[in-house]
Amino acid sequence: MPIPDETADLRDGPDLHPSLLPLLPLVGTWRGVGKGGYPTIEDFDYGQQVTFAHDGRPVLRYESRAWLLDDDGTVLRPSARETGWWRPGATPDELEVLLAHPSGIVEVYVGRANGPTQWELSTDLVARTATAKEVTGNHRLYGIVDGALLYAMDMAAMGQPLQPHLSARLERVGG
Amino acid sequence: MPIPDETADLRDGPDLHPSLLPLLPLVGTWRGVGKGGYPTIEDFDYGQQVTFAHDGRPVLRYESRAWLLDDDGTVLRPSARETGWWRPGATPDELEVLLAHPSGIVEVYVGRANGPTQWELSTDLVARTATAKEVTGNHRLYGIVDGALLYAMDMAAMGQPLQPHLSARLERVGG
Repeated sequence: MPIPDETADLRDGPDLHPSLLPLLPLVGTWRGVGKGGYPTIEDFDYGQQVTFAHDGRPVLRYESRAWLLDDDGTVLRPSARETGWWRPGATPDELEVLLAHPSGIVEVYVGRANGPTQWELSTDLVARTATAKEVTGNHRLYGIVDGALLYAMDMAAMGQPLQPHLSARLERVGG
Repeated sequence: MPIPDETADLRDGPDLHPSLLPLLPLVGTWRGVGKGGYPTIEDFDYGQQVTFAHDGRPVLRYESRAWLLDDDGTVLRPSARETGWWRPGATPDELEVLLAHPSGIVEVYVGRANGPTQWELSTDLVARTATAKEVTGNHRLYGIVDGALLYAMDMAAMGQPLQPHLSARLERVGG
């Protein structure tokens, strides 16, 4: 029994749904390093792989895996993961992002394209399980710069106001 | 730069975290067929693949892909997908499940183990984007019976009360 195709490679698999054209530059697998910090924790370096894939329908599957790095770039241990979906919104410039975190948090973001290679997301709703830490809201800016995927994420959590938490530069790998 | 291992095979990869022992029978990749129905749609047959994987930490990554089947079992087109996490809850019998749906819905379930091979989940919270259809709440029962993964899902949506929506029997594949 075959499973319908999914791909992160625009040269392979089903055609991209026309409503995803504003998100086309994101489709692929991206890998690189970033820096994180927050008042409640020590600063840290991390590696990350992000995938934006599609199966021909008007939604991108999003997955992120990250791992902590020590000073010489050795992998220390797995860290944050995210899985979810990027969807076109009610108008062509709008988007909706849904994320589930293994830390016990689900998020709905509303977003918009700031031109052809920049996307801005703000928390619309965040909910958590009984055992999860408190997260109030996030803001994310993604952009393609010189062929790399850059993002910066601000977070409001643990009683702290919205402020820088993560930033990374990821290069396209594979597709 | 290596990515930390993830596996759906208990014989391979990192050891399962002890807090996941109540969910151990679920770990693997499962595939099979199911039947669906609801007052607002025609009855349908579907194929489905479900994966429960782990990376050594106390959470299972969950992914489900389904596809519609015609009367002779031919794949018609992709249908529902789900991605998320199953976590131990505050006590050993409790669990927390977080799901993100490409249809624009995120869900948090609270659950419990009804013995060693049956798990019952009820919606704790459901949220949706501006463009998603209305879903009020769900109830899911998963069980291992004769080595197969069986589940039944009741749904309250589109103004209808909670009632049967999906049921399937999935056999272990691979791991």
